[in-house]
Amino acid sequence: MHILVTGAAGFIGSHTVLELLESGYTVLCIDNFANAISVTDEHGNAISLKRVAAITGKPVPFQNVDVCDEAALEKVFAENKFDGVIHLAALKAVGESVAKPLQYYSNNLVASLNLIQMCLKYNVKNFVFSSSATVYGPPSELPITEKSQTGQGITNPYGQTKYMMEQILIDVGKANPEWNVVLLRYFNPVGAHKSGLIGEDPKGVPNNLMPYVGQVAIGKLPVLTIYGDQFDTVDGTGVRDYIHVVDLAKGHVKAFDRIKNVGNVGTEIYNLGTGVGYSVRQMVDALKKVSGRDIPVKIGVPRPGDVASVFCDPSLAQEKLGWRAENGLEEMCADLWNWQTKNPQGFSA
Amino acid sequence: MHILVTGAAGFIGSHTVLELLESGYTVLCIDNFANAISVTDEHGNAISLKRVAAITGKPVPFQNVDVCDEAALEKVFAENKFDGVIHLAALKAVGESVAKPLQYYSNNLVASLNLIQMCLKYNVKNFVFSSSATVYGPPSELPITEKSQTGQGITNPYGQTKYMMEQILIDVGKANPEWNVVLLRYFNPVGAHKSGLIGEDPKGVPNNLMPYVGQVAIGKLPVLTIYGDQFDTVDGTGVRDYIHVVDLAKGHVKAFDRIKNVGNVGTEIYNLGTGVGYSVRQMVDALKKVSGRDIPVKIGVPRPGDVASVFCDPSLAQEKLGWRAENGLEEMCADLWNWQTKNPQGFSA
Repeated sequence: MHILVTGAAGFIGSHTVLELLESGYTVLCIDNFANAISVTDEHGNAISLKRVAAITGKPVPFQNVDVCDEAALEKVFAENKFDGVIHLAALKAVGESVAKPLQYYSNNLVASLNLIQMCLKYNVKNFVFSSSATVYGPPSELPITEKSQTGQGITNPYGQTKYMMEQILIDVGKANPEWNVVLLRYFNPVGAHKSGLIGEDPKGVPNNLMPYVGQVAIGKLPVLTIYGDQFDTVDGTGVRDYIHVVDLAKGHVKAFDRIKNVGNVGTEIYNLGTGVGYSVRQMVDALKKVSGRDIPVKIGVPRPGDVASVFCDPSLAQEKLGWRAENGLEEMCADLWNWQTKNPQGFSA
Repeated sequence: MHILVTGAAGFIGSHTVLELLESGYTVLCIDNFANAISVTDEHGNAISLKRVAAITGKPVPFQNVDVCDEAALEKVFAENKFDGVIHLAALKAVGESVAKPLQYYSNNLVASLNLIQMCLKYNVKNFVFSSSATVYGPPSELPITEKSQTGQGITNPYGQTKYMMEQILIDVGKANPEWNVVLLRYFNPVGAHKSGLIGEDPKGVPNNLMPYVGQVAIGKLPVLTIYGDQFDTVDGTGVRDYIHVVDLAKGHVKAFDRIKNVGNVGTEIYNLGTGVGYSVRQMVDALKKVSGRDIPVKIGVPRPGDVASVFCDPSLAQEKLGWRAENGLEEMCADLWNWQTKNPQGFSA
């Protein structure tokens, strides 16, 4: 199967492309580097994807395309024949989305609407979408299952765009029963590929915990602020369901494997997490251990919308996709550290 | 105040423009006739708005503009200075939205995003949005207040677009505290202006009850199908909160009056309904009475998502806007019938 991957040069994109190639899929990668300005070489190619080509020994065709640019996107569809798309392209900085809501709604919704339109026009019926645990809002129950309530208490436009895209895709799937729509709700992706050649390279100060912790460990940032240590958890710090990015990437492959094997599955929704929650302190301690570095922390106040614990029940993905996370806390931290030490300046060095 | 009204030629739009003019506001009307292909004269002007000009004796400037056309919309903003916008333009056929979800999401979201973008760019800070009772989904409580849950159980893309636009505007309002955003949640608008010169002129077979009943009464349609007569209501048929369109239109004027008088109100949400529910049979009987016509009915099965009763608590609008519906069931039916008999073919005759 030939798969169009949007947002392919990013953290999840590059790992997903790698796993697709390792499983015999071919890809066309598109990205416009909206989230990472400095990860192209002097020819404008994605460094992350060049490394994927090096790791896999396979071609990784790439085009710099903004999915919001309808004409540019149509050219991609007119010139290629896809069996499916994986739609990862989106603005994703939670804090920025609160400050610039229109930019987030416009970019994330218009990109997705354009992509759906092209899929309808060019008869591409298999659509895998990168959704997020954020659609659940503050969990109504733990562990979170795919049947748990969504759409209530989402505190930022980024999360709202993920929720809205789910609704839109569910309705498009209903109106086009021959489509297969797979909504993958990511929990907290961390780690990096074992090679240490690709990993997370956030623009500016990291928004997510583990890249931040990694940069503190290596001395790029002075101290980690832990937002709240009085939650009702094992040690008072927030508990989340971290998942190794390679496991997450494999979930996308499994989604297409299922479509290939089963045929018309309709619309399906899967949690992609380990089902195990770790606290901020547990994550910090684990990275301390693998890195042998000191990681100074200070305690701040909880951020608006922060909750004590979020973790999922991933059993539906195991049952239907034959997928489960294989990497635990130690691999997540070891692989992050391997990437971090080999690429202290990310891809831009 | 000079107000841009989108979707101005439609049922709610034309009545709203009329009430704005009667209250001393000036307007620029735009519409692209997406919902009503045949309501222009031979020069492409909106017949409904020409009648508003005739009724009020005031100019009703009009431009045929698709709000989804960013360049055309920008021209409108570049050439005019608005104090506020009333955004009514949207595709609105519930059933069609289920069959063509992408068309509904694209049109309604892109139009709204474009309009917000222009308001930000041209410093127009007062935004009144036509929301709908549909955002509540199946009511979690009766009467419905503005604090009742929204976003759960909405069964069609039309309703989802209204809910999404509310979320987007709420977030834009938060990020721009100098803005005034007023979300008006319409219940079921019916009736027509007393003059009988403007009213509801649905394209094709009416989707809403009362235009359908009117067309049965006048003999254009043979029989009304009542979808379910076994609900837990006064007579088994569904109960809704019908509101006279002139009252609804005045709600928009009151929203701008409040902004004019109070200044920065931030984001506010109001139910616009009477607070009184009538059943389908009660509505039919009332129209029978004012028309003196027979209205044949047959009983069908309830449609997916139909619920027994929906009516609101409109007291917040009374308290904050000084607004309440002045017309009751009799006026709603008498004015509908007056419009219907004077314009048996709607505006196209």
